[in-house]
Amino acid sequence: MSQQVTVVGAGVIGLAAAWRAASAGYRVTVVDPEPGRGASWVAGGMLAPVTEAWPGEEAVLELGERSLRRWPEFARELAVDAFDPGLSEAGTVVAGRDAADADQIGILADYLGRIGRTVEVISGRRLRSLVPGLASALRSGIVVPGDLAVDNRQLLDALQAACKRNGVEFVRESAREIGPSAVVTDSGVYDADAVVLAAGARSALLHPQLREAVRPLKGEIVRMRPRRGCLPPPGVTVRAIVEGRPLYLVPRADGELIVGATQYESGYDESVKAGGVRELLDYAEQVYPSVSEYELTEITAGLRSASMDNLPLIGRLSDGVIVATGHYRNGLLHAPVTADAVLGILADEGLPDEIAAADPTRDRKREQV
Amino acid sequence: MSQQVTVVGAGVIGLAAAWRAASAGYRVTVVDPEPGRGASWVAGGMLAPVTEAWPGEEAVLELGERSLRRWPEFARELAVDAFDPGLSEAGTVVAGRDAADADQIGILADYLGRIGRTVEVISGRRLRSLVPGLASALRSGIVVPGDLAVDNRQLLDALQAACKRNGVEFVRESAREIGPSAVVTDSGVYDADAVVLAAGARSALLHPQLREAVRPLKGEIVRMRPRRGCLPPPGVTVRAIVEGRPLYLVPRADGELIVGATQYESGYDESVKAGGVRELLDYAEQVYPSVSEYELTEITAGLRSASMDNLPLIGRLSDGVIVATGHYRNGLLHAPVTADAVLGILADEGLPDEIAAADPTRDRKREQV
Repeated sequence: MSQQVTVVGAGVIGLAAAWRAASAGYRVTVVDPEPGRGASWVAGGMLAPVTEAWPGEEAVLELGERSLRRWPEFARELAVDAFDPGLSEAGTVVAGRDAADADQIGILADYLGRIGRTVEVISGRRLRSLVPGLASALRSGIVVPGDLAVDNRQLLDALQAACKRNGVEFVRESAREIGPSAVVTDSGVYDADAVVLAAGARSALLHPQLREAVRPLKGEIVRMRPRRGCLPPPGVTVRAIVEGRPLYLVPRADGELIVGATQYESGYDESVKAGGVRELLDYAEQVYPSVSEYELTEITAGLRSASMDNLPLIGRLSDGVIVATGHYRNGLLHAPVTADAVLGILADEGLPDEIAAADPTRDRKREQV
Repeated sequence: MSQQVTVVGAGVIGLAAAWRAASAGYRVTVVDPEPGRGASWVAGGMLAPVTEAWPGEEAVLELGERSLRRWPEFARELAVDAFDPGLSEAGTVVAGRDAADADQIGILADYLGRIGRTVEVISGRRLRSLVPGLASALRSGIVVPGDLAVDNRQLLDALQAACKRNGVEFVRESAREIGPSAVVTDSGVYDADAVVLAAGARSALLHPQLREAVRPLKGEIVRMRPRRGCLPPPGVTVRAIVEGRPLYLVPRADGELIVGATQYESGYDESVKAGGVRELLDYAEQVYPSVSEYELTEITAGLRSASMDNLPLIGRLSDGVIVATGHYRNGLLHAPVTADAVLGILADEGLPDEIAAADPTRDRKREQV
């Protein structure tokens, strides 16, 4: 009889791992009170390792690019097992507003050049000719053709459908306790040959080894839609730096525009803060003025799971529990590479070299050196 | 057998008229697809004729003050028939931010003084000592003790309960056509001895005589709540003028804070506009900075029914339909006086002198002069 794998958490990481494991022949159970919600559901959907790159975070960029390369195949396979998750290859522009913002764009462009990814800094005027509707106050920008975007909610739906099609069982409850061979909920104990902990920021509450390693980092996003007579959303993903703060506008195929994201420590509080929304709306108007006339359709907050070095934690913890969390802003991007890694660990092939940097015990090892 | 009155519209005006008519012995039917919603449900709840006063609108102030005087008795009777609608007597302050805003405060104070309602202009510092938490940038203000506020949603619930207790029947459908002796919905024809048209801005779509007389004037409001550790909302209603724009913050007994309201022409479109919300949040922070940390609990838009002179339209139209609409920003305030007027008309006592200025045929009469 095949091995029983119990996955805690049905965000993009848990669902991707569950789908892959079930496809590979494992019996899989997913434990989550609300499958397909959480930070993955709130997210903007950018798969953008290059525009997220920053000096000193080479390992994050490398892991992101590895995962990005697997995304088209991941999406194709998902379309076969369920349906198309809505991958967009429209590309990304990065824009800076004031002189200091333009300096940041320059630093990013220089850095990308040094590591062999040449990008050209263009004027605000040229940027506006590429993306009509951008604010005339934007000073400069860069065009990054390779970064992708995905419709995060369509993806989550597709992953759940693919899971169900492959026989994954869903337990719609919160995990209260986990161990290497069981998951405890209010209604009972779910025995398992392997437990995969993919509960995002809440993973820290479920395993003592993660208590210091992962923390919730709140983010708000706003969803809007052009009203009649409005200029449509930009045709590409727009990342902007406004007064030093990062902002993104991600267009969806159905006409929706996702604007994100705030970022601050607020424990496990998932309420939407008035000041955060004010900031998003204000900055969005400064980047793409037409949004002022858009209909505001939704405001949501979610909790990213942040690690100390912005790299995820993927691997076995000391008691044998397999962890896949700490994906910070990159959960959607890292889903393919993380799911593959979890499969490798389940098959006792150990942690693949490519994600050695995501070793979940790295903090402890560093302390021992 | 008692007369049948059919009321079109179950906002505060329609419900108040229906309740009063049913109490007086009429058989009453109310036609509305969503009783207790619409602009009345979106509203802030201020009963504030004095702080809403402006030179040239003496008739609006007079009608408002008449209705305000009836409010405590209206609320008491409603509490007997149903439950307390949550009347607050905490009072109102008006604050101005920059020099031009302070000038507007001065104009309001002078005007109130000229018509015999002396108010004192106080410094921003003194204002802040009265209402801790107000922004230090506020220049000056006035204190208006008499204005009231009501929990608009509790009021709508109480009115519906009072209606039901008095045997009012509700037809949860839209009125398609109305005449002096019948209301037509998709499901049938409701005959009536008298029809009361109180459908707010939509009244213009239901009667040819109102087509030019009443128009929708959209407004957005934001509801928020202090998160743990936040300064609580102000203890009084705060009206502010920020960069020439009016803003209000109305505290509720349960800790909620209502922030309103935008105002612009947008036809019958009830969508929430991103720029409107940005403005409300931005100005609210400029008046009471702690709201930045509050939880944003709700954003809603509604359509005020505006007349040409900001006075309501109350009386018989030429075909005998009784109209009660065009209450602009004052629907909640004017509910008692409007309901009394409708009762007077039903009893063939004609339009009471006190609301002669609200004659619904006044535009036509003016044209004929």
